Amino acid sequence: MAQSFQQYLETHQSENLEQLKEFLKIPSISALSEHKGDVLKAAEWLRDELTRIGLEHVQVLETKGNPVVYGDWLHAENKPTVLIYGHYDVQPVDPLNLWETPPFDPEVRDGKIYARGASDDKGQVFMHIKALEALFQTDGKLPVNVKIIFEGEEEIGSPNLPIFLQSHKEMLQADVLVISDTDMLDKGKPSICYGLRGLTGLQIDVKGANSDLHSGSFGGGVQNPAHALVEILASFHDSEGRILVEGFYDKVEEITEEEKKAIAQVPSDDEKIRQELGVPELFGEPGYSFYERTSYRPTLEINGMYSGFQGEGIKTVLPNTATAKITCRLVPNQDPAEIFQLLVKHIENHKPKGVTVQITPFDQGSPFLTPFDHPAIQSAGRACEKVYGTKVAYTRSGGSIPIVADFNETLNIPVVLLGFALASENFHAPNEHFHLENFYKGMETLCHYWYDLAESL
Amino acid sequence: MAQSFQQYLETHQSENLEQLKEFLKIPSISALSEHKGDVLKAAEWLRDELTRIGLEHVQVLETKGNPVVYGDWLHAENKPTVLIYGHYDVQPVDPLNLWETPPFDPEVRDGKIYARGASDDKGQVFMHIKALEALFQTDGKLPVNVKIIFEGEEEIGSPNLPIFLQSHKEMLQADVLVISDTDMLDKGKPSICYGLRGLTGLQIDVKGANSDLHSGSFGGGVQNPAHALVEILASFHDSEGRILVEGFYDKVEEITEEEKKAIAQVPSDDEKIRQELGVPELFGEPGYSFYERTSYRPTLEINGMYSGFQGEGIKTVLPNTATAKITCRLVPNQDPAEIFQLLVKHIENHKPKGVTVQITPFDQGSPFLTPFDHPAIQSAGRACEKVYGTKVAYTRSGGSIPIVADFNETLNIPVVLLGFALASENFHAPNEHFHLENFYKGMETLCHYWYDLAESL
Repeated sequence: MAQSFQQYLETHQSENLEQLKEFLKIPSISALSEHKGDVLKAAEWLRDELTRIGLEHVQVLETKGNPVVYGDWLHAENKPTVLIYGHYDVQPVDPLNLWETPPFDPEVRDGKIYARGASDDKGQVFMHIKALEALFQTDGKLPVNVKIIFEGEEEIGSPNLPIFLQSHKEMLQADVLVISDTDMLDKGKPSICYGLRGLTGLQIDVKGANSDLHSGSFGGGVQNPAHALVEILASFHDSEGRILVEGFYDKVEEITEEEKKAIAQVPSDDEKIRQELGVPELFGEPGYSFYERTSYRPTLEINGMYSGFQGEGIKTVLPNTATAKITCRLVPNQDPAEIFQLLVKHIENHKPKGVTVQITPFDQGSPFLTPFDHPAIQSAGRACEKVYGTKVAYTRSGGSIPIVADFNETLNIPVVLLGFALASENFHAPNEHFHLENFYKGMETLCHYWYDLAESL
Repeated sequence: MAQSFQQYLETHQSENLEQLKEFLKIPSISALSEHKGDVLKAAEWLRDELTRIGLEHVQVLETKGNPVVYGDWLHAENKPTVLIYGHYDVQPVDPLNLWETPPFDPEVRDGKIYARGASDDKGQVFMHIKALEALFQTDGKLPVNVKIIFEGEEEIGSPNLPIFLQSHKEMLQADVLVISDTDMLDKGKPSICYGLRGLTGLQIDVKGANSDLHSGSFGGGVQNPAHALVEILASFHDSEGRILVEGFYDKVEEITEEEKKAIAQVPSDDEKIRQELGVPELFGEPGYSFYERTSYRPTLEINGMYSGFQGEGIKTVLPNTATAKITCRLVPNQDPAEIFQLLVKHIENHKPKGVTVQITPFDQGSPFLTPFDHPAIQSAGRACEKVYGTKVAYTRSGGSIPIVADFNETLNIPVVLLGFALASENFHAPNEHFHLENFYKGMETLCHYWYDLAESL
């Protein structure tokens, strides 16, 4: 019998690590135009590498910004097709002086590789390539059909991805989308994220008089926009944290018994969280735990507000404007545009006298949920458990990943977030690193996953 | 019979105007240390002038800052003693390029004299001196006892006045304090201000977690300090503008029938005010007019507030602090320290869960009211009516004049605000000026006032 992928990966450990370093050396910072050439270099590096391991139709596809690298292998007849997404661009590196070793001169210390992009996301992109290579080298083929899409603008908000997805809808059609750009629950504790909250946001601008007024001469005789704004803002919640916008919870489904079992698998120590945050007590919608409140329930949060004088001491001004920025995190079945309309209606119903109120919408993103008992989710879980030797956690995250919403809107396929980073690995910060344990175990997990998925989807 | 003071003032019109110009030429800007010498020069100019007209005990009294000029004449046996306050320092002049003629090169145009300090307050200080001179020159004596105190730090907040008043309490004892540093109702419409609102202020700092949090990961699971703050702030008023702080109105007296008659003398066009402010409607405590709300009723106003993200667009942050600055304008019988305590109690009673709240007091100032039927007020009114030939208005102002509170606390005597400036005369702005009509009529009014007061107080 031929060599197993495990053996192959093991014998190529140091070779793979050296090659990862080469990839990480390319300073593919998408936010800085002086690195445009480096970003292209990283795309070409991926193109060459995808071609070399045996993918077909490998192309560097132009967008209005940085290109998308595509490749596929579609010879697993009657087997599912997996679309793999990752990004080869990285965050800027300042403040540079806080890096212990240069961000683009990768160094291994204490079982971790330090470099910008080590965990977010070049390390994980590289793992996908090497897992496929191991399968090609040991089996001569892949157990599933694979399509790969690596983009170069994730760190600047993927401005050109939605249009790219729209115009390549046919090419990207698949049975499941797998993204490795998230983190594990903890060291040695793999997790599959099967749900993300959506987002809808708005700005409220309350306007009073033509200009700021003297609070002595006009105070009490004209509506203060700051008063009007706090009246609106305070009307959004009751004192226990429930949202009072009419219809807001109408489409929100209660947590199922099955989900409660999944939740029980996620260790969550509310007292520890409270201590770490340094708050007198945690606070939120009654009847739910911290984890449920932040992952399974929708929210309405003030992100910012301002009015009048903000310097030291006091200035007896009656401000003429007041502004608040608000976002809602949404859960499955909540439609961002519909919730925005409910907010507008609520604000209109609570508009105080004597001022004008203007509402400006912000970006909207749909929530996403792959049922956690979906075969593609459970299959990923089995692969993790095989390699890590521990029960996997099926999680939902409170955040929103815009690209997931983008994929959702165009392709409408189940999404599996199978990430191998750790939350402590300084993404976007100095001394970004990646644990080699997860680098090696992750590649092995991916190989297992493709074999398992071939039989279960 | 000797010359009347009217004749004397008329024959000395141009001489007085020329002398006023000399006084205005001294750039006595208290805010700028390079003008320290000029400020002293103005004080010495006043000392010489008070001595020359016949006042006694004339002194330039040191303080920790700029000196106070004092002089008196106390030979009107069995007659009341008037303390006259004014200030000889002026505001800075920038932006200099907006002045049509240099600020310290006084010029008469269209019946107005243009110069920094022309109306605020060197012009009015000068008028008091010249009125007394006219009485000395025509009658050989004054009808009342007079004490004069001119300070040089009003434009920087009179930092050394309270201590000066405390340490010269005996010297300054008088029956009435007269200040000419306010404006008339309008051109040709003299007014006596008999009340000012007081002030008490505080800052509310709400603190949540140790640092700003990601609204996706933590939103819904921890109290948002911005939510907590708006809950507190919204609890201060009902939707119609009444203040809901327990006990806040307890000592506020309703407007009397007599005061309503005085109010009826003050022309106030609410619709015109609304149009000028550009608001959809005026707003305030039900049952009161705009003028009553801003002058006779106490207020609680947010002067500023801020929390979280304030840039363009959206940032999905859950802020960890939120701050508001608040001042109350107080009416007679409301004690600033007591109201501050009521506010603290109210905030404590409305403190939301999951955050800490810190309260910092700001400066406090007592309201002041001389009953408008007080002889010193009515006497001033008669003097105005004699000269201007029109009914005088007895007004209360919504603002607070800190020095009035200072005098109030030390001397506790009735205060008459008898000013001859017009609101349109650009105090603190380029092209400050003073109408010569009021310069001449004002001096005549003061002479009448002292004669009338000698008989009525």
